[in-house]
Amino acid sequence: MSVTAPRGFRAAGVVAGLKDSGTRDLALVVNDGPSRAAAAVFTRNRVKAAPVLWSEQVLRGGRVRAVVLNSGGANACTGAPGFQDTHATAEKAAELLVDSAGEIAVCSTGLIGERLPMDALLPGMDKAVADLSRGDGGLAAADAIRTTDTVAKISFRQGEGGYMIGAMAKGAGMLAPSLATMLCVVTTDADLPAETLDRALRAATRVTFDRLDSDGCMSTNDTVLLMASGATGVVPAEDEFTALLTEVCADLNRQLLVDAEGASKAITIEVVGAASEDDAVTVGRSIARNNLLKCAVHGEDPNWGRVLSAIGTTDAVFEPDQLNVAINGIWVCRNGSFGDDRDKVDMRPRDVTITADLSAGPHSATVWTSDLTADYVHENSAYST
Amino acid sequence: MSVTAPRGFRAAGVVAGLKDSGTRDLALVVNDGPSRAAAAVFTRNRVKAAPVLWSEQVLRGGRVRAVVLNSGGANACTGAPGFQDTHATAEKAAELLVDSAGEIAVCSTGLIGERLPMDALLPGMDKAVADLSRGDGGLAAADAIRTTDTVAKISFRQGEGGYMIGAMAKGAGMLAPSLATMLCVVTTDADLPAETLDRALRAATRVTFDRLDSDGCMSTNDTVLLMASGATGVVPAEDEFTALLTEVCADLNRQLLVDAEGASKAITIEVVGAASEDDAVTVGRSIARNNLLKCAVHGEDPNWGRVLSAIGTTDAVFEPDQLNVAINGIWVCRNGSFGDDRDKVDMRPRDVTITADLSAGPHSATVWTSDLTADYVHENSAYST
Repeated sequence: MSVTAPRGFRAAGVVAGLKDSGTRDLALVVNDGPSRAAAAVFTRNRVKAAPVLWSEQVLRGGRVRAVVLNSGGANACTGAPGFQDTHATAEKAAELLVDSAGEIAVCSTGLIGERLPMDALLPGMDKAVADLSRGDGGLAAADAIRTTDTVAKISFRQGEGGYMIGAMAKGAGMLAPSLATMLCVVTTDADLPAETLDRALRAATRVTFDRLDSDGCMSTNDTVLLMASGATGVVPAEDEFTALLTEVCADLNRQLLVDAEGASKAITIEVVGAASEDDAVTVGRSIARNNLLKCAVHGEDPNWGRVLSAIGTTDAVFEPDQLNVAINGIWVCRNGSFGDDRDKVDMRPRDVTITADLSAGPHSATVWTSDLTADYVHENSAYST
Repeated sequence: MSVTAPRGFRAAGVVAGLKDSGTRDLALVVNDGPSRAAAAVFTRNRVKAAPVLWSEQVLRGGRVRAVVLNSGGANACTGAPGFQDTHATAEKAAELLVDSAGEIAVCSTGLIGERLPMDALLPGMDKAVADLSRGDGGLAAADAIRTTDTVAKISFRQGEGGYMIGAMAKGAGMLAPSLATMLCVVTTDADLPAETLDRALRAATRVTFDRLDSDGCMSTNDTVLLMASGATGVVPAEDEFTALLTEVCADLNRQLLVDAEGASKAITIEVVGAASEDDAVTVGRSIARNNLLKCAVHGEDPNWGRVLSAIGTTDAVFEPDQLNVAINGIWVCRNGSFGDDRDKVDMRPRDVTITADLSAGPHSATVWTSDLTADYVHENSAYST
């Protein structure tokens, strides 16, 4: 299952010894073809980890034979030696697969600013190649890329004509910004060229991972990679493929949201009545990043004033006295002032929906975030020590 | 002392009954002249509280006879009725002082979205006017504007020729953005016209309150008001006055920083080597708003990778491999990679200084923030309930 649900893929997840915990920390996903078409989106952070700089180059060719992923170290801010480590990792995979390093993507996640223990990682590669399988490999790979994730995240769907899309992800964030590094590998046995995969992936991530904003922080390592084996020979219509891919990404997105570090609430922010989709996203992000509101949701306090305050910091089109806000369906703010009784809002469910109506047009967008908790503080104040 | 340190001012702080705690919640500062020249800066949030909308109009005239300040309610997002409440407050003060409501400024702080209990506030005004004094009034007023502030914040300085600047402040934030509403009243017995006061105040707040970024949230109520009585007849040089005013604002800024909600660390972020001052401020704010970094500082973890990650999200001029970062004087990151041993960094003091060198030019700026703690979460998840 997971990335090995589609035909033409093998995967493995092994213990290379990168993590002190002694759990799986090295994953490998291999595309046995016949196609090797691939596309990817990367973090927009200008400080990019070595594996991102490497994989960006690989993806320029539109072909990927395999991807190596490690947890236990981000290999970010490690200078030229760190880039050499990524290069050596790709070379090792290429050697074992008797292929070209130029078609080996690399992803890393973990602490920034430390070299990877290559004396553990390279021998781990031998183990990973030996373990490659279609059966358990997909789940083992999904397990190996976890850092603070409490569960492995996988998804798969079948498309028209019998092709499959499979995927695994780790992290509790998004492409930009992100709570922690988000890595995602999506595979398919449909037969589509790299350009189509690229368009489909950008369309799917734009409305899913790109709108999951756990804590406003953007990782140096975020990567979403899509690989097509073409093993079924099915050539789906681009629209149909994009819709199915978006479904898979939305499924993983939900899993990331629910497992966000320290979160006790999954918050869905629907912005409606916007003059443009950009305005809706801008307002949604501003609400999602408001620490005071995130604390209020944690305390099960329907504090709509903090929603208005967050909207007010944006340059979106709206009039303050025409803003409406609903929390879990109760319109607690109408026309910029108090509306229905806030005591009617049931804040107890894990899922909290905030609807902000800008009364400025027909556009809308949804952004997801989680609450700000003492557990989040605890987890992130003790991470590297 | 406080706002009554300069001649020509009386003040009071009384219990009007706006706060459940039964502590002081209504302050009044009166300028007895001979001058009434005044200037102010307000929140840049587009959702502005009624007292901000009112006071902006008052300040257009450049003259302020008195300012009424209340804690126990922000009077924000209260619609036309809320604006009427502010108007009635100014009218009541004008009536008691036998003056014009058009020269009465109003400031409010507390929960957003609820009407003020005017049946308590208006009788409180009688009490405040009866209590006006030069002696204890300044401290009582500073006490009355507190919300979550654990201590009253006051400052005063003497200028050349014997004039004074006095001030009081509340909040743990800044003009934009802000942890909670920041209110500040500054008084002087120097004789300067409104235009000069305006320039001086903008210059002073630009490098002090405007660069204190507790939690990235911008209040609907922030106000800094400067009133001149001219009672000494001293006309200071604009440069000298601006420098002294900046000193007073910096002193209060430091008090706000140290008393920020739930904070255990006071973080000074110095950005140097920037291509422009704007770049330096942009980078400083991005670092100051990074929740992951703020958690790391709380955990006394010199996690410089999170500093680089925050810098990377900006559009400032820099090359990733030329960034240097020092934490408490130890250059833990050189040329975008690890530098001196992070174990050398002593994170135990309450004050933590992060220096980010962009290696891109001669400009610099300082931004202040505090750490993110479980206490912050606790305080803000229980605020309105």
